[in-house]
Formats: sequence, C-alpha cells, structure tokens
Amino acid sequence: MSKLSPSPTAAVLIIGDEILSGRTRDSNMNTLARFLAPLGVDLMEARVVGDRQDQIVAALNALRAAHDYVFTTGGIGPTHDDITADAVGAAFGVPVSEHPEALAILERRYAPGEFNAARRRMARVPEGGVLIANPVSGAPGFQVDNVFVMAGVPKIMEAMLDDVAPRLKTGSPVHSRSLRVTGVGEGAVADILRAAAEARPHLSFGSYPFGFSGDHKPSEIGTQLVIRGRNQPEVDAAEHDLSADLRSAGIEIAPT
Amino acid sequence: MSKLSPSPTAAVLIIGDEILSGRTRDSNMNTLARFLAPLGVDLMEARVVGDRQDQIVAALNALRAAHDYVFTTGGIGPTHDDITADAVGAAFGVPVSEHPEALAILERRYAPGEFNAARRRMARVPEGGVLIANPVSGAPGFQVDNVFVMAGVPKIMEAMLDDVAPRLKTGSPVHSRSLRVTGVGEGAVADILRAAAEARPHLSFGSYPFGFSGDHKPSEIGTQLVIRGRNQPEVDAAEHDLSADLRSAGIEIAPT
Repeated sequence: MSKLSPSPTAAVLIIGDEILSGRTRDSNMNTLARFLAPLGVDLMEARVVGDRQDQIVAALNALRAAHDYVFTTGGIGPTHDDITADAVGAAFGVPVSEHPEALAILERRYAPGEFNAARRRMARVPEGGVLIANPVSGAPGFQVDNVFVMAGVPKIMEAMLDDVAPRLKTGSPVHSRSLRVTGVGEGAVADILRAAAEARPHLSFGSYPFGFSGDHKPSEIGTQLVIRGRNQPEVDAAEHDLSADLRSAGIEIAPT
Repeated sequence: MSKLSPSPTAAVLIIGDEILSGRTRDSNMNTLARFLAPLGVDLMEARVVGDRQDQIVAALNALRAAHDYVFTTGGIGPTHDDITADAVGAAFGVPVSEHPEALAILERRYAPGEFNAARRRMARVPEGGVLIANPVSGAPGFQVDNVFVMAGVPKIMEAMLDDVAPRLKTGSPVHSRSLRVTGVGEGAVADILRAAAEARPHLSFGSYPFGFSGDHKPSEIGTQLVIRGRNQPEVDAAEHDLSADLRSAGIEIAPT
C-alpha cells in the first residue's frame, strides 16, 4: 500500500500460544483485513505473540503508538492462560477491575451456581475501557483508547465487529481490479507491469503467480495481476491500459 | 510457551501487501510453525508487513536480533513489487548482486529468449547469502546469517524447507497431550485447570473452547485442554492427573 494516499491506519495483534505452536490456524487476521478494507482503514501490519505478558505489552505499545487503531484477538476467556486484560492494563499503565456493566451481562447469562470466580474474570476490564458487545457468548470485549480487544474464537470475534465498526473513523476505500494472465509465468509480464506501475505512481500493482502444483500443464500456470488505488476511475483506466499492453504482447488474459 | 525450557527460538516474517489487504489468506505461518515444532525450535512471534522496504528492514532487524532464526516468506519473484532481496541487503547493510550459482540455475531453467531481465532479478542475493534450493520452480531462496528468505507461494516455500532443515540447530521438541471436554464451557473447568497448571510449573496448559456455532446443542459445546512440555513422562502424568480431576468433578471427557 506504499503508493496509496493517507487514510486511518491499523494493526492487528493476534495473541495465543496455539497459533505459534501450529495447533490452530489463525483466521482472524484475514477477517479483520476484509473488514477494514471497505472502511478505508489501511491495515499496515500484523503480529502474532504468545500468552506472555511482556510480549503482549511490548507489541501493543509499539503498535498503538504507530497506528490509529489496534485490534487484538485472543486471551479474554475465563482460564488462567487468558491474560490479555491484564496485559492491556499493564501496557496502558492502568489498573484492571470488574466492570459493572460486564458483570451484569455475565450475571444474566449464567445460572447462579454456574457464575463462578473463573467466569467473573471475564468482567475484568482496564480502567477507562468501553465494552464491545458479544452477541454470541455474552462475555464482552473492550476498547481502551485506540485499542480494540476481542475474542480469539473466530465466530465471536467476527460478531464483535458489528459493535466496533461505528466507532471507527473511515477513509476512502481502496478499489482493486484483477487481471488473470494464463499460459506464461510472471517473468513474462514483469516488464509490462513495471512500466504500468511507473506510469501511474499513485496506484499499487501486484503480481501473484499460480499453477505450481506438482505436474501442471503450461496452460494452467499464470499470474494474477492486481491494481489497487483510491480513485476508482484511475484504477479502471489502469486496468484498461494494462490489458491492452498485455494483449499487444500476445499474452492471454483469462476471464476472472 | 512461557513455561518451557530454553531452546533455539525463531520468528516468522510474512511479506506482502496481498496478505494485509485480505486478498490472500496466509498459510505459510502455520506451515512454518508445524515445521519448527518437531525440531524443538520455539516459534516465538510472527509479523506480517507490506511490500515496503522501510517496514521490512525494521521488522527484520528487530526479529533477527531477538531470535536465533528468522524465516521470511514472499517478495522474491521477478516483478517490481518483489523487493525482499533489496530489503534484506539494506537490513544487513550489504550490497545485493547476481549470485553466480543462482544465475546458472535460472539460465538452465529458461529457454534463451525467456530468460529476460525480470527473471535475472531472481538471481540477486545479498552479499554473503547462501542459496536455498527451490525444487518446484528453480528460483532459489537464500540464507543470510540467521535469516532464511523464502518464496511466498506456499508450495514453493514448503519445498524449500527440505534444504533449510539440515542447517538448523535443533532443541528438545515439545510434547503435547489434549483432552476434549464436552457438555460444559471452559468456565466450568477453569479452576481445575488452574490448579493443574500451578502444580506443574514447567508445563504449559491451554484451554480452547469450541461449539459457538449458531444454534449448538449444549452437548456440542466444550473445550480442548492442551498440555505441553519438553518432558514426555511429565506431560503424560499431567494428562493422567488432570483427567482424574475432571472426572471426579463429574466432567465428561470425550475421546479425541
């Protein structure tokens, strides 16, 4: 996104040993990327850290200083390995205590005998935190300043975004157009693509090859060319010109 | 992994605008996590950055100083947006030039008319770089000091690991055992799990709830408890004791 105009920027912080051990495949980063793109909020970087307070604090402080928004996922459940609320409190230098509204939500959700000390932990929020509604399982996330703290379970994280979206200032969304070139590798289109990129410095041009399966036929190899920018007519014009340049060079463009 | 003994540590750096835009779902981080775990190399953190030299250099320099190994994926193809070799050169403060062996590999791979300037770019390696074989599509990766620079295409990245594995010093692998608890949420097992974790401070205990689909039956909710450690008998003993504690509390353990 180096060549796109300024817009609010964001970072994602995925928290959890299970991602780093390989046990769980993260999907939250992609969900957040797809959530932010149409809002015109530029996702600039993402990090994955383990269930360690020092790591979470260091990453959070670096990211919240560098970006307009930080979205964290993971570590807000009832078990001893859920340390995100404390880590966020430590990062901001504020105490963490039971949030009355969060407590009320949880009390309503559980039968009296079920609402034990472990589940009460999910009401703990750093000072100044504003709750993020969890319509799936009750236990809320929370926002502290520019940091949105959400669940790690993908279904819950995704549901929380409904409550997050209205709180974000938005930017001009990035438009993209793709061209699917087949029958040649990306090396065959590189010069044409570079010239197109140099001609339109406000746009971003990417090339993503495909067809590396074991015994592919030459017809099945190719590359996806992606043009991105904030000005839709300019992106459309770039696609039109690039298509023409590729066809002039005898390169086949497949329907997408 | 906070509670596991020292071992070589590693970080992953995923490079590419397409991951941050949400267009592409990264799978390389998980592949690397699963590759490193049995070698006893602890993956401590991962980062995703865009195709921007300043971002790549900053992340790479932070990660290579903090860990025994860094594995990067993406940005080593023939197009103008492939800037990883230059960024790695800049991070190490060394020039980048055509590597004779890489050039020979590429010359053999392409017909004379096909081996154009763009494809020659894939022979560019920072000074001191040692090639990493690419049995899928020829164009090699490279190792500079403790940094392994690999392709972004998952099939190629995975194939490169065969050449990377023998270069790593290994540690004692982490063993893990899982217990699948059903019919109750993780809040119901939190106290038992915490006591188990406190009794065995050298092990790591995680809890990962499931069953948050739209209209689940209570019997389909539950949590996966994961015990991890370097001492297999200790992990086995912990699983045995935790199972007994859960059963004593009337909690059902499903076959895994």
